[in-house]
Order: sequence, then C-alpha cells, then structure tokens
Amino acid sequence: MISFLPLCSHPSPKKVLIVGGGDGGVAREVAKHPDVESIVQVEIDSHVLDVSKKFLPFMGAGLTNPKLTLHVGDGFRFMAQHRHEFDVIITDSSDPVGPAVCLFQQSYFESMREALKPGGIVCSQAGTVWANIDIVAQTFQHCHQTFRKASFAYAAVPTYPTGQIGFVLGSLSPETNFKEPLRIFSETELDSFNMNYYSAEVHRAAFILPRFARKALDEIVSNVTDEANTGDR
Amino acid sequence: MISFLPLCSHPSPKKVLIVGGGDGGVAREVAKHPDVESIVQVEIDSHVLDVSKKFLPFMGAGLTNPKLTLHVGDGFRFMAQHRHEFDVIITDSSDPVGPAVCLFQQSYFESMREALKPGGIVCSQAGTVWANIDIVAQTFQHCHQTFRKASFAYAAVPTYPTGQIGFVLGSLSPETNFKEPLRIFSETELDSFNMNYYSAEVHRAAFILPRFARKALDEIVSNVTDEANTGDR
Repeated sequence: MISFLPLCSHPSPKKVLIVGGGDGGVAREVAKHPDVESIVQVEIDSHVLDVSKKFLPFMGAGLTNPKLTLHVGDGFRFMAQHRHEFDVIITDSSDPVGPAVCLFQQSYFESMREALKPGGIVCSQAGTVWANIDIVAQTFQHCHQTFRKASFAYAAVPTYPTGQIGFVLGSLSPETNFKEPLRIFSETELDSFNMNYYSAEVHRAAFILPRFARKALDEIVSNVTDEANTGDR
Repeated sequence: MISFLPLCSHPSPKKVLIVGGGDGGVAREVAKHPDVESIVQVEIDSHVLDVSKKFLPFMGAGLTNPKLTLHVGDGFRFMAQHRHEFDVIITDSSDPVGPAVCLFQQSYFESMREALKPGGIVCSQAGTVWANIDIVAQTFQHCHQTFRKASFAYAAVPTYPTGQIGFVLGSLSPETNFKEPLRIFSETELDSFNMNYYSAEVHRAAFILPRFARKALDEIVSNVTDEANTGDR
C-alpha cells in the first residue's frame, strides 16, 4: 500500500526514490509497477540490508531487483544533492521516536518537495490514528503545508500495534485526487503482480477514516484555509 | 458498526433482537437509531450484565435504556418461541470456541431466519480475515446459504487480536444492498448520536476487503451458484 497508493496516484511514475525500507519489501512492490523504470533506495543502516537478505529472503529479494540502485547513507543528505529528480518518493521509516523523528518534521517534507520533479508525489509512513492521532495530525499538517494536495490513508497490518499503519501523501500537482487511482489494474494484472491486498477499491477505501480521525484532519485543513483567508499565511 | 450496518441497511428497523451483548454496548448503540421502537435482548449470563453495570457504566448504561426489554436466557430457545417478530437480529457473541460455537453454525442462521419478519436482516460477529479466514468463510457460507443476500464487513477494533472484527450480514430481501446504506444520517445527526466511528462512507468502506479475503468469499458465492445451476441445490 505504501507503494501502490502513490504510484497509482501519479500519471507516469518512472523514477522512484525510497528512503529507508531496508527490509526490501517496498522495493519489491515498487518494481512491480510497469511504469517504473528506475528505483533509487537510500538506507542509512547497512546491517538492516544484510540481515534482511539473510533472514527475510521473501522481502530481501527486492534489494536485488534489476530496476534498483541501492545507496547506504542519509536520505536527507541524498535528497539535498538530487534536486527535481524523482516522480515519487516513498519513506518507509521506523516510528517517530529516536533516529527517525526527523523524517516526520516539516523540514523533511520540504526536502522531499525539492527532490521531486514537477507533479511529483510523496508517501510517508505516519503512525496510526488509534494510538497516535496527535502525531498523525502533526505529520499531516506538515505535509499539507508543504504540498498542493495532501491526504491520509491506512492499511491493515495485523502485526503492528492497533493492527494498522497510516500514510500521509502529498502532491505538487493541484490536480491530484489521491482517493481515485489514475492507474487501475485488471484482476489478471493484479494476479500477475501477486497482489494479496491492493486493488483499486481497496485504494479508494484506504482514505475513508473513522469520524474522530476525519474530523481531526479536516480541522487542520480548515484552520490552514482560515489563516490563508485572513492573510496570516 | 455491528448495530448501524444492519440498521441502516433496513428500510424500517422498528423491532430489534440482540443475542448476547451483555456488556450493553450494542443496546446503547441500537437505541440511538430513531426508527427503532423496541429492543429485546437475550443474554445467557446474568453475571455479565451485573459486572458490566458495575464496572463498565459507559456501556452498561445501554442495559437500562427505556426502549430495551432484557431477558436472561438462551437466544436459540428464545427465537424458537418468537417467530417472525423482529426486523433486525444482532448477535454479539464471544469467539467461536467453547459455548459460543453454536452461534456460528448453519442451524443458528436458520433459527434467526425464522425469528425475522419479512425483509428482516441479521448481523453476527464473525471473527477476522487475518487470523481466522477459514472460520470467516464458513460462517459466511452458512449465512449465504440461509439468506437471499449475504455480505461480510469489518470494523477496526485496535484492542482485538489483529486489530479488527468482522461481521456477516444476511437479508431475507433480495433487494438489500448492504454496501449502500438506505438511511444516511447528516453530520449533525451523527454528532447528536455521539458517533465517533460510523458514517455512511465508513459503512460503504467496511465491505471493501483485501484481495485474498474477497477471493475467499467470492469463491463461496460462485460455488453455490454453480451448484444451483447444475441442479445440486
């Protein structure tokens, strides 16, 4: 979902950057999308790559995909050196405590914005509305302030706390409607990708939130609009 | 969700039976629906009622709702004595192990069918596709074989194993389309009901399943249709 939600929201996702994602699962999924020509991945911890290849071969296989160029290093620094290069940037980080905190801050969203080509899209892991609605709201706010369009979606991950993970999505294009995929794959295509979760209808439903969560995020959008209208922004 | 999914799928849910639901939460929610005139609840364990009133007053309050008539007894036996009485029957049981096993079997669905008025609807707790896809599929099959229309939905419950709970829904009316609520409440109405989760769009999205789960349930529907076509049923 962290892969196909942004990829299917982009009209032509040819070049993709993955920040983090050391287990290889995101690279494996991104490579399935037929429009994707090249994937660059920047993982800060080489041990994660080694351990994944050794002990999680079904995910680690993504790290040897021919579309992929793998760098060990800091995603922030990498993006500063690669401006306007990517159609889609996916951040598959750990939770916003300790070393990954910086990947949830405003400056990170600005950094991604500068590394995107025109019309580019980002998708970042963003916690869950059930345990961390404040962090979700704050991350969404950063994304909303940085991009022309922003949205929040979730996927069921039964092994994660609360059984879900959330994603914030941002787009440089005001035309983007994250809730309606631009690229819709047939059942045969999805079978050939070995997709057990994603479909166009799952994509649409991923943006439908419980009322308490939708209200929390709607409030951010309307506050920002109010500030804009009164000239505070 | 176990309340408003079936209630909002019924054109006029006046009389509702709750089987189980001893904590009072379902009665509390059912009573919010303005069409509901009377609720009958049959809970087998009087201790659950006492403990809930004492220690879970925010749910136990549902047990003293003026619309509610509470019986301590066996739901199976109760339904055998009350034929064609209810518009909606909601089964809020424990998991399908031990004493609650019988509430997941074909005979239970048949018993509910006989207790319904024409056009009646049932909704039963049915496990989760992530941990018990076989039990979900079996329960769905019983429902599908007993009712003119059957469907499966889920709700996020972060404190449950895998973070979800599932529901099977069955209707005596072939016109029922569970995925599209007949009754749509305004935001103001939902606020007045103190609804933090349910909305019409959440209702629709609750029926959208991951591909592996949708395939498992679609297979049951197509197998039954095949049998019907070849005269085996």
